[in-house]
Amino acid sequence: MANVVVLRLGHRKTRDKRVSTHVFLAARALGANGGVLCGEEDETILGSVRKVSEKWGGKFPISFARNWKKELLRKRRQGFTVVHLTMYGEKLMDRIGAIRRKKRLLVVVGAQKVPPEAYSLADYNISVTGQPHSEVAALAVFLHELSNGKELDARFPGARIRIAPSARGKRVMKGAKRAYKTHLYK
Amino acid sequence: MANVVVLRLGHRKTRDKRVSTHVFLAARALGANGGVLCGEEDETILGSVRKVSEKWGGKFPISFARNWKKELLRKRRQGFTVVHLTMYGEKLMDRIGAIRRKKRLLVVVGAQKVPPEAYSLADYNISVTGQPHSEVAALAVFLHELSNGKELDARFPGARIRIAPSARGKRVMKGAKRAYKTHLYK
Repeated sequence: MANVVVLRLGHRKTRDKRVSTHVFLAARALGANGGVLCGEEDETILGSVRKVSEKWGGKFPISFARNWKKELLRKRRQGFTVVHLTMYGEKLMDRIGAIRRKKRLLVVVGAQKVPPEAYSLADYNISVTGQPHSEVAALAVFLHELSNGKELDARFPGARIRIAPSARGKRVMKGAKRAYKTHLYK
Repeated sequence: MANVVVLRLGHRKTRDKRVSTHVFLAARALGANGGVLCGEEDETILGSVRKVSEKWGGKFPISFARNWKKELLRKRRQGFTVVHLTMYGEKLMDRIGAIRRKKRLLVVVGAQKVPPEAYSLADYNISVTGQPHSEVAALAVFLHELSNGKELDARFPGARIRIAPSARGKRVMKGAKRAYKTHLYK
């Protein structure tokens, strides 16, 4: 799969704290390889996403960039194709075939109003339905389609904790010895 | 497709306001038929979801229930199969085939810690990856798989506003006459 970096555009520290965290955790869980937070600086988000990676494995470098445009142009110079997720864009399924063939993707998700320039700087403006909903949901469906559902079985090397799927309880595998710790809910 | 109602469990008014709104808007956009908010009462969420439905069409009744368990049991008596989305559950793709055959689904998504009872009252505990991420993302992938991607082309009857997909600008169709209003971003 492509190298996928998610850029969160226009983060506002108080209002978007939880949703921006969801954006990056969903990105990590669903196969993206890193994130960039743009807007108001917010170390707590970077910290909590890094903590999740340390504990649950895999690599998900995340950084802050004050200027989203500079960051976007920098990624373009590095060969990234820019996909902006917006309800105004072209239909996901009409373009996902072409997007799957790209080696490096910068996926831009906005908080609230996105500057017009983002639409023109993007290689693709893509909509996951033309309805107003959630950038987290749009990103999730996009990443799921991008890897044809294969992200659901991804491995996260170096995890200190893992979940074993279970019909009823919580089966948590901890530490290098992979001792099972099972909570069964009755 | 099945009749799908999304139950948001354990909503906390200040902390979860935006994420719970995202849950319901994503549910509506991705083909669910209604929602129930459980936890702390929060009229602003119900109001803003209702406003979106009035403007963007379709039917998405949403209500508040103080007691999630009572509501869940009531839905079960009405023939709803209960699917609880949790990182501890069985793998989505192992169970989605069976779930697709159900006529009525109550999809439970928790905010923070979910009471053990929810796991045992659910007919299915389903995980969208065993990683910690976002209930909005999990719900989105679940609904997308549930309808095999067909939800992306759903129609919302009675809409006062619609988006026409566009590669660059914003094409908004307003009113009964469907006058096109086009903003082209250059």
